[in-house]
Amino acid sequence: MANGNKLAVFNFQTAIDKRLIQRPNKPKAKLEETVREVFAAIEQKGDKALFDYTLKFDKISSNILEISKKTIDESDRYLSQDLKDAIVQAASNIRKFHENQVEKLSPVETAKGVLCWRENRAIERVGIYVPGGSAPLFSTVLMLAIPAKTAGCKEIILCTPPNIAGVNPAILFAAKHTGVDRVFAVGGIQAIGAMACGTETIPKVSKIFGPGNQYVTKAKQIAQIEYNTAIDMPAGPSEVLIIADETCNPAFVAADLLSQAEHGDDSQVILLLDNELLAAKINSELSRQLEKLPRQKIAELALENARAIVMNNIDECIALSNEYAPEHLILACKNYGKVAEKVVNAGSVFLGNFSCESAGDYASGTNHTLPTNGYARAYSGVSLDSFIRKITFQEISEEGIASIGKTVEVMAAAESLDAHKNAMKIRAEFIANNKNKQS
Amino acid sequence: MANGNKLAVFNFQTAIDKRLIQRPNKPKAKLEETVREVFAAIEQKGDKALFDYTLKFDKISSNILEISKKTIDESDRYLSQDLKDAIVQAASNIRKFHENQVEKLSPVETAKGVLCWRENRAIERVGIYVPGGSAPLFSTVLMLAIPAKTAGCKEIILCTPPNIAGVNPAILFAAKHTGVDRVFAVGGIQAIGAMACGTETIPKVSKIFGPGNQYVTKAKQIAQIEYNTAIDMPAGPSEVLIIADETCNPAFVAADLLSQAEHGDDSQVILLLDNELLAAKINSELSRQLEKLPRQKIAELALENARAIVMNNIDECIALSNEYAPEHLILACKNYGKVAEKVVNAGSVFLGNFSCESAGDYASGTNHTLPTNGYARAYSGVSLDSFIRKITFQEISEEGIASIGKTVEVMAAAESLDAHKNAMKIRAEFIANNKNKQS
Repeated sequence: MANGNKLAVFNFQTAIDKRLIQRPNKPKAKLEETVREVFAAIEQKGDKALFDYTLKFDKISSNILEISKKTIDESDRYLSQDLKDAIVQAASNIRKFHENQVEKLSPVETAKGVLCWRENRAIERVGIYVPGGSAPLFSTVLMLAIPAKTAGCKEIILCTPPNIAGVNPAILFAAKHTGVDRVFAVGGIQAIGAMACGTETIPKVSKIFGPGNQYVTKAKQIAQIEYNTAIDMPAGPSEVLIIADETCNPAFVAADLLSQAEHGDDSQVILLLDNELLAAKINSELSRQLEKLPRQKIAELALENARAIVMNNIDECIALSNEYAPEHLILACKNYGKVAEKVVNAGSVFLGNFSCESAGDYASGTNHTLPTNGYARAYSGVSLDSFIRKITFQEISEEGIASIGKTVEVMAAAESLDAHKNAMKIRAEFIANNKNKQS
Repeated sequence: MANGNKLAVFNFQTAIDKRLIQRPNKPKAKLEETVREVFAAIEQKGDKALFDYTLKFDKISSNILEISKKTIDESDRYLSQDLKDAIVQAASNIRKFHENQVEKLSPVETAKGVLCWRENRAIERVGIYVPGGSAPLFSTVLMLAIPAKTAGCKEIILCTPPNIAGVNPAILFAAKHTGVDRVFAVGGIQAIGAMACGTETIPKVSKIFGPGNQYVTKAKQIAQIEYNTAIDMPAGPSEVLIIADETCNPAFVAADLLSQAEHGDDSQVILLLDNELLAAKINSELSRQLEKLPRQKIAELALENARAIVMNNIDECIALSNEYAPEHLILACKNYGKVAEKVVNAGSVFLGNFSCESAGDYASGTNHTLPTNGYARAYSGVSLDSFIRKITFQEISEEGIASIGKTVEVMAAAESLDAHKNAMKIRAEFIANNKNKQS
């Protein structure tokens, strides 16, 4: 790193060292024991355990879990008109994008008399977790409740940690506006445990969605593995990778890097470019913008692990990006449409100089719940599909038995599964006997 | 249970006791330690560790992992023409069904100047596990390699345990016919570890598919949680639930119950009906058919935990089935089309008297990799989607900044994320300045 650059610049025009895009290998915290203890207590003591742990972990003494309908209804009194309008517009865009994801499924006659198809069924009851902390992440409510509602989930519940004043009204307003059925003031491990096990007040759900700290992440993992509860996806720190060339606006790029860096000191920030001079310009913009930032300290810590990597050309940049598989990918380069075709591994992609990541975080309409930590190699972000099962159906006629009967019998016999064979054989014989009788 | 019935009959026409459809709560075997040890050895010693564990666990001394192209090519010499024809027909049906799952994705202008869309990208490298044991499950190769190939995965690898004679030719033939790129003779924990960690010979994959015993299941879990490798879905014993009324053929129903029971002594077999006399008829068919079954012992053990439950009507049956969420659901009742509309939780559904489960296990075209253990409440079976990511894209024009800029700024500020707000603000100001210059 040279002369006080905010972003360390590496020139790798000759060879790429893949270590440059390795994510830090965090030591795995041993949280299982705490999570298991909390889950066991919830199974035994139900709501009482939730109150106990809310006092212990959150230092909040409470004896009410469910936020009343009245409190939810009145939440809009505490929001500015600007914020209400913003939430309503964002919700509308998100709804449009996710409504467009309803897939029309058509049947296929795979062989004569063998009709196969799929039908969409929404998951009946889902749970949304919205973390507390310094800021109320009401945007998460929009990103999870809107596709859940669009999918047709029958019951959508939401858990969020209480603070002394109760639950933040922006979260309640977002919940009300998106059709969340019930809101519970409980957070952390105990919230996930309540949704995985069920208590007197909080119903057990089939799938849990939402971000959280390392305790919440571990609790979701245990819910998935030991409590038969599905989860949205594995979690990790948020990430952005930007590919920029001389057509970019360095101030915009710096602003986008910072909007990722302010998330947390473990945020991953990578800039790939084809031009070392540009790295210097972006670095000087970074310094300028960083000074005025309220979350300057956090952003500076994140930038310590961030890097700018200079490659020979944009093709090399996109190859390295695919290797890294970023959660967010910004293409601030010419012919970004062509470059986008080469994207193989990414969560969400932002094209051109005006598509900032924060647009997608809030209001473009795409979902902001995306795969981090390289999971984009195998996972998609949350979508309507995350709230739906596609059940397969098949209807086989007598003609269908004639079409595939022998195939099934031969394969079952070769796998030494004679009862499988018999189930087909008994039908084929029945049909043959009937025909004989008729003739 | 009365008079030597193979299937215990419970009459619950007055009240349903949900305990009747509870799955046994198996004690969780402590296998983590073994799995972690094997994975650590693979990370350290690579291929050598695979040979060591193949000798230790499978009692096979081997120093070759990859099956040669020649061996794969020559596999068809060892198969009867009937079996080859059966595999080819089944593959064709499965291919038709999964090709029909390619989703056409269209862009949406969520707000003026804000264009959002999704694009399909196949997972680049996937791994298929095919268990060994008494019978070669070549049908699993078809069910996993065909959608992988249809999705466009660049590399499909397959691991299966060796026996003294090598790898079963039916598995090799199925692999060759479906476009599997490489086959490795390694099984159990060490196969999953190899695909999760990568070795000199076996490449690390992004997602692992396939069934297996409790060791394989635990290894897939550890791969998912600790080695950033996705897996198809959590596993449990296979299940069938049959809903039957007087229009069913008792011999067919008995054959279907047995085809599930022969899988293993932990197979789940449930029959729901609206008529106690019918239960008796099916029970007598069961006794008759069971006698001739090669896997009679296994099937009898499974039937010990199986049950027939008599309800008041088919509506009650379907409600109870939705509660149970079976992997396979057979509707052997009149108006099965109407009944099917009420199915909410199930993996795959078989309609009418001629749609036996074994048709779907092998050759109807639907996928036989399905959610067990109640996971059908939240998971779909394997489909083309299991091999694809849907990446979101957004392109925002200057007009788009005008549409959603304020919304993004207001929401980011309310979440105390000022850098997120700035990323939008800097663009809005740039556009305003440009306009001023022009005017």
